[in-house]
Amino acid sequence: MARALADRAPTAVRLVGHGSSDAAASYGVYAFGILPGWTALRDSISLTVYYGAPLDHSSSVVVALSQSGRTPDVVDYVERVRSRGGLTVAITNELDSELARAAEMTLPLAAGPERSVAASKTFFNQLAALALLAGAVAGRGGEIAEGLRRTADLLAEAIGPLEQAVAPVAVAFAYVGRMYVIGRGIEFGTAREIALKLTETCRVAAEPLTATDLAHGPIAALDALFPVWTIASHDESLPAVLEGAARVREAGATLVASGSAATELEGAAFRLPVPRAPIALLSPLLSVVAGQLFSAALARAKGLDPDHPERLTKVTLAQ
Amino acid sequence: MARALADRAPTAVRLVGHGSSDAAASYGVYAFGILPGWTALRDSISLTVYYGAPLDHSSSVVVALSQSGRTPDVVDYVERVRSRGGLTVAITNELDSELARAAEMTLPLAAGPERSVAASKTFFNQLAALALLAGAVAGRGGEIAEGLRRTADLLAEAIGPLEQAVAPVAVAFAYVGRMYVIGRGIEFGTAREIALKLTETCRVAAEPLTATDLAHGPIAALDALFPVWTIASHDESLPAVLEGAARVREAGATLVASGSAATELEGAAFRLPVPRAPIALLSPLLSVVAGQLFSAALARAKGLDPDHPERLTKVTLAQ
Repeated sequence: MARALADRAPTAVRLVGHGSSDAAASYGVYAFGILPGWTALRDSISLTVYYGAPLDHSSSVVVALSQSGRTPDVVDYVERVRSRGGLTVAITNELDSELARAAEMTLPLAAGPERSVAASKTFFNQLAALALLAGAVAGRGGEIAEGLRRTADLLAEAIGPLEQAVAPVAVAFAYVGRMYVIGRGIEFGTAREIALKLTETCRVAAEPLTATDLAHGPIAALDALFPVWTIASHDESLPAVLEGAARVREAGATLVASGSAATELEGAAFRLPVPRAPIALLSPLLSVVAGQLFSAALARAKGLDPDHPERLTKVTLAQ
Repeated sequence: MARALADRAPTAVRLVGHGSSDAAASYGVYAFGILPGWTALRDSISLTVYYGAPLDHSSSVVVALSQSGRTPDVVDYVERVRSRGGLTVAITNELDSELARAAEMTLPLAAGPERSVAASKTFFNQLAALALLAGAVAGRGGEIAEGLRRTADLLAEAIGPLEQAVAPVAVAFAYVGRMYVIGRGIEFGTAREIALKLTETCRVAAEPLTATDLAHGPIAALDALFPVWTIASHDESLPAVLEGAARVREAGATLVASGSAATELEGAAFRLPVPRAPIALLSPLLSVVAGQLFSAALARAKGLDPDHPERLTKVTLAQ
């Protein structure tokens, strides 16, 4: 697959998906940008599906993300771009799905059945799949694969202590109605996924923001009842995240510090650090788990079932 | 400027900005996609500024948006891409600014001094500038300019009645702490800007969502105290917006219907329709004003000064 992508020498890798898959797409922008130095974008589905925009797809590569492989407008998008000459790749957990049939090539998530309505292990595997694919395109597939193995080992050790650490924080947050989740660069997709988990499983109005966007308006809404979850990783974007966290503190809001550099954030009311990834680009695979476990604990603290949120079903067929 | 852009035959138009300027960039994706059929993206600033990603900029066009022309990482981004061969355009209200000096060409917003901290008329002019530039590239500059003139006339007539219509709705929302703002396609940027105005001037946790993304998780958080502002315009994405509005109603949430097709949304508790734009692509210039006026009225109803939100300054110098 990596050879087929490299042969196409794409002017743009077009990532599409909704919900958790769209959060994974945010990560893909960085995986393709940092490893092979390719421009990747979360493409507008509606430009192609609703507006019929006359885009030239002869040198497009599409990477379509859907756990179920049944998201209608993603399937529609892939069919249209493929018919116009784009190279289409599906990343899905369901090899016998409309999306897998619509795309030219398929990368299986191989996560086993996702029993919870809110995706968790398939999101994790989407990040791994995107890192592997981008790494292989850059001729660094082996290094990324080895990094993923070591990341999985680190996670296996961390998950028990982390599960214990999130429980008391969740109890303190049982009456919180709104939160921001701050991440930048490679961790912005993580921020988007954690915010989505808090929204769908805990009914918290949680919005993901980059550390810089926080200063461009949203900082004005903060107060002591509006906590902020910050992802700080050992990474080039850490100074921007530290600056954002300082603004949060000045506004009097409660700060939760997570990520591998959680201890570097001064004044955090709660800290949920995760191990440092063997390759910086793989940090989000560890950072996201703290947020997933916290969301599950918070849902239970509120008397909600994190595996079966109201009004959601495993396969979303919205247009 | 349009000729210079067309001569470059860009593989991608890279739009960058923060806050309201980033919301305008969302609109730019559609203006360039629909008019000349070019791929435009809200580019990751951090990939270039923090990660030094080895992107090929020889056929890049950058359109950098900043009201003040002083946003540090936007200026940094423009300098780096220009030094690597990209064609750089600044759209700013300040011709004597770092951004205007950093970029090869400048398109002035010519909005006069923006006295309010929260941008409003400069956002409006950013949309107009992007539509004009994309239209000129597509050889349709005259048609778009005439459409803008007629849109301005429609707005001049509508603004008085609209200002009266928002006041009673604002009173009913004085105790609301969280909202969603729904728009799709060309109106997604409008949804982002209205959500930002509600957040920064009214201290409401307002999150922008596409009609489709609402179904992929956030719908689970809705209840009777979590209202949803929906932008419905006469446009190809209207069926998706109507479907999303129906889900909001089923969840028991209060629905505010705005946009030119506001009357087509069944079960709305409040309606704030705007005139139909002479060209569908110009709808956001009218839709956004309803949200701007509503935000100002809501801020006043809450005893806040909409022109001077806490902790914000006219020029944001965050990294």
